Amino acid sequence: MMRDPHIVSSFDKDLESVQAMVMRMGGLVEKALLEAVEALEMRDEALAERVRAGDAAIDALEEQIQTECARILALRSPTATDLRTVLTVMRLAAALERSGDYAKNLAKRSLVLMHMAPVNGAPGAIRRMARAVVALLSDALDAYIARDPAKAAEVRLRDAEVDQMYAALFRQFLTYMLEDPRTITPCMHLHFIAKNIERVGDHATAIAEQVIYLVEGAVPETARPKVDSVPMAEG
Amino acid sequence: MMRDPHIVSSFDKDLESVQAMVMRMGGLVEKALLEAVEALEMRDEALAERVRAGDAAIDALEEQIQTECARILALRSPTATDLRTVLTVMRLAAALERSGDYAKNLAKRSLVLMHMAPVNGAPGAIRRMARAVVALLSDALDAYIARDPAKAAEVRLRDAEVDQMYAALFRQFLTYMLEDPRTITPCMHLHFIAKNIERVGDHATAIAEQVIYLVEGAVPETARPKVDSVPMAEG
Repeated sequence: MMRDPHIVSSFDKDLESVQAMVMRMGGLVEKALLEAVEALEMRDEALAERVRAGDAAIDALEEQIQTECARILALRSPTATDLRTVLTVMRLAAALERSGDYAKNLAKRSLVLMHMAPVNGAPGAIRRMARAVVALLSDALDAYIARDPAKAAEVRLRDAEVDQMYAALFRQFLTYMLEDPRTITPCMHLHFIAKNIERVGDHATAIAEQVIYLVEGAVPETARPKVDSVPMAEG
Repeated sequence: MMRDPHIVSSFDKDLESVQAMVMRMGGLVEKALLEAVEALEMRDEALAERVRAGDAAIDALEEQIQTECARILALRSPTATDLRTVLTVMRLAAALERSGDYAKNLAKRSLVLMHMAPVNGAPGAIRRMARAVVALLSDALDAYIARDPAKAAEVRLRDAEVDQMYAALFRQFLTYMLEDPRTITPCMHLHFIAKNIERVGDHATAIAEQVIYLVEGAVPETARPKVDSVPMAEG
């Protein structure tokens, strides 16, 4: 489809508005993740409660995006790249909604952990992992807006580092639990927190793959880090 | 949109074909889940490997469904209920794909667990939970095909039972670990298996909610069992 760059179609205007909503949603999810790990580290109950309550706004935004995309499909009947773009936006919103759920879950677990003895060093390691994942998510969304498959490919590769951070934490928690059985309950919560952050990384990777698919029309051939990777070495 | 029931439109034929693919996908996912827990219980390495390898067929089917739905959207430009139906099919396929990932993950963890001392009673409890979830998934897909919101509402309620089974297992694993630290590693894997089965139940619930939305045009008001429920009592 040829387009005069000086003519902005109704479709383009619709798309721009819904993309702005996705970016706002991305910002909220990133903030929720960072604040949830901060609440965990600082044992800040009020902050954890705010993150928990804030998930409703993320969910509402997702519903608004999905409704708006359905309206665009019905009203504009886009084809080819335009159709693929709308479907991509819908998948991005779904991935962000799930990531928001993980942030909320993290906040809930941090509230539980505040009433237990602290596990040395764990919150710091969790924070580093969360920051790496937030950077991934942010770069994946930037790659979408810029339609930049090279940047998206880089996000895919960096997700492997997050998986390594998770595997290292898994080993660390096992060691703590074996050394001191009183740490079993907090370590299980910390382990789930680490796993949830790793899953947000998987969603960032999925967004990056959507960008590559959108621009290049094909999913990358090389296997990506697995969604449900089990650190087999620890088994 | 009024329709003469004796005239089958091109859209209806397309929809029927893609719905048949979703049902086939559902069947594969249910089989994968049941075989994965059987492999865990019987310590059947070959079966676990088959489940693991079989996930590729589920993923391929999902991609085929998403591509076909995009083709229907582009070619038929459906509106109103027809559009909502195609979008529902896309969400169903995505939910089944993730459920298949959980079955694969379960198979991988069962392979790890085969090389550890058995945890008394755990595989049987896991099997019961998996059977309940497979029944939920199957009923949710039936509710979709029959466009039966009452059946879908019942699936939503029954998911709470699965959540209770998960909470009971969580308590059981904690007890084992506290009593005998040598069970910590297998119990962590078993705990993840239970959590993954619970998540398949959440996907069945999400499918049921899609059916209610499709037929009644509104999401149910009453809060559904939470996706990322943390058994706080155990915290």
